[in-house]
Amino acid sequence: MNTSDQSIRIPYDRLKSEFFRVLLKTGFSEEGAEKCAEIFAMNSLDGVNSHGINRFPRFIKNAHLGFVKPNNVPTLVHRIGSLEQWEGNLGPGPLNATFAADRAMQLANENGIGMVTLANTNHWMRGGTYGWQAAKNGFALIAWTNTCPNMPAWGATDPRIGNNPFVFAVPYENEAIVLDFAMSQYSYGRMESLKIEDKKLSYPGGYNTKGELTNDPGEILESWRVLPTGYWKGAGLSLLLDIFAAILSGGRSTHQIESCITEYSVSQVFIAISLKSLYNFPSIGNSINLIINDLHNSNPIDQSVKIRYPGESVLKLRKENTEKGIPVNKNIWEKLLAL
Amino acid sequence: MNTSDQSIRIPYDRLKSEFFRVLLKTGFSEEGAEKCAEIFAMNSLDGVNSHGINRFPRFIKNAHLGFVKPNNVPTLVHRIGSLEQWEGNLGPGPLNATFAADRAMQLANENGIGMVTLANTNHWMRGGTYGWQAAKNGFALIAWTNTCPNMPAWGATDPRIGNNPFVFAVPYENEAIVLDFAMSQYSYGRMESLKIEDKKLSYPGGYNTKGELTNDPGEILESWRVLPTGYWKGAGLSLLLDIFAAILSGGRSTHQIESCITEYSVSQVFIAISLKSLYNFPSIGNSINLIINDLHNSNPIDQSVKIRYPGESVLKLRKENTEKGIPVNKNIWEKLLAL
Repeated sequence: MNTSDQSIRIPYDRLKSEFFRVLLKTGFSEEGAEKCAEIFAMNSLDGVNSHGINRFPRFIKNAHLGFVKPNNVPTLVHRIGSLEQWEGNLGPGPLNATFAADRAMQLANENGIGMVTLANTNHWMRGGTYGWQAAKNGFALIAWTNTCPNMPAWGATDPRIGNNPFVFAVPYENEAIVLDFAMSQYSYGRMESLKIEDKKLSYPGGYNTKGELTNDPGEILESWRVLPTGYWKGAGLSLLLDIFAAILSGGRSTHQIESCITEYSVSQVFIAISLKSLYNFPSIGNSINLIINDLHNSNPIDQSVKIRYPGESVLKLRKENTEKGIPVNKNIWEKLLAL
Repeated sequence: MNTSDQSIRIPYDRLKSEFFRVLLKTGFSEEGAEKCAEIFAMNSLDGVNSHGINRFPRFIKNAHLGFVKPNNVPTLVHRIGSLEQWEGNLGPGPLNATFAADRAMQLANENGIGMVTLANTNHWMRGGTYGWQAAKNGFALIAWTNTCPNMPAWGATDPRIGNNPFVFAVPYENEAIVLDFAMSQYSYGRMESLKIEDKKLSYPGGYNTKGELTNDPGEILESWRVLPTGYWKGAGLSLLLDIFAAILSGGRSTHQIESCITEYSVSQVFIAISLKSLYNFPSIGNSINLIINDLHNSNPIDQSVKIRYPGESVLKLRKENTEKGIPVNKNIWEKLLAL
């Protein structure tokens, strides 16, 4: 192994300040750079380098190419009751999505439930970011984004549907339960990370260029023939999430997001529900505790592996990375310093 | 093959009138029996016998046992803005769900989006029923139900989570695109149907009692170890759908729905969005057409198999079964006549 492929540990503040420096240099306002740097650094802190440091150079490149407009903010197109449609104006995806999740929560405060859609926004990086944001504020959140055509429909060879990440989040104790999953069995981000680490997938995740199922992430990244999660089920859900995102926002559908290299101008949906508006609010915490306790009482196939809820491993990793520094690829760290 | 295992064709009206007869005898009002008979007969007409005729005897048994109260209707517990929480009063699942979907559409008419939850309701049979109902009325619908614990969590051997069917629907031309899928790779209903037809699953769908993966539906129905769709992804989504259903309705969670034999008192969520309230309503039909056209242009792995959207095959089947009669198992038909 080349030493440049090794992992080194970088403190959170150091990583965030490098992001901030580069964002300022790229034309972001101080406030925008601060928020955006925090989101990218938190993603790496939570172990999601694929949408943290590993993705950052591509995000900056898209700003230089004009696909991400550093200081553009969403503008309201239409409101009816507890539903708002916003134009994303190609602003930075993480900032637009943070805004939209906040706005959905405000609508939910008034009406129990609130829905905000974004047309012509950009890649939100890690969907879980907005799940944590909502849950920490006492809301349940359902949100999704469409993507470029990066996956074949079920039974097809050519990528025409997106892997359209889907997020569900609820508060849990003082933290959150956050499910954040793409419609491919493995996300491109995860496959890129595993490829960097020279690791295989646990299960077949797509086809190689010869049309054979494979668990080699590099082969799948080459063929673009990822396997939909649950075969026809993930493919079907991908299609419906795209239809909903496009028609509810008035923005682009996957087939209209032409390039997966630049991937810009996507459509997103955020649905927030105010838990404190519910009649049973006082018992919700206990209700979730009982569900998780029951899950934890599962009998594991492998007795050494604890059965976990989505996002359970994040807190431990966040603590470890806060104390020891965030493991990042040395090569990518040096690339960041040179930006 | 025993002749009693053979499939015979029964006209829709004949099937519906048998359901109606039995429902009246079971204590349903004329109006309730009429609506309920229609839903069961439509499910069979659409090729979903697993939640049509095949399931009907168990539904009637649950009414006799007192788990389904033939004439109970939902009552409003709490309203805030565009969110309503209803008590299902153990009414018939299909009637309660029809009511809840209607009510969510009324709320969406006022506020763009509407959410209705049901606590202590019963099995809604085929989730697609409510998807078609909403889409035919010009609404987008997202709905789900929890179930009894019928699936192990990812990495576990004992069933503690539900397969929690999830529905997405939108209008399409004069019909609908309806995605209706359970969180197990194969639904119990589908496995029961395939077992009756003495067929295997296309992919492994669970474990046998020896802990080996199998595609034999009978072996999986015996072990109760179904495979979550997309492994950890379907298991995670199942958990979140259950948490949402339980806390948003104030009803039971999967772990509180004790028996999978009687399975009653479940929790459901219906979210309707009024498409005509959107600024881009005039272009929505065209937008969906373009998405489906693009999907249909996919290059199939097998050139003889057309790439389809969820629910696409239903219309053809509905037409065929309307003309030729609905194929039902002779044994089950005789069981129905004897009820």
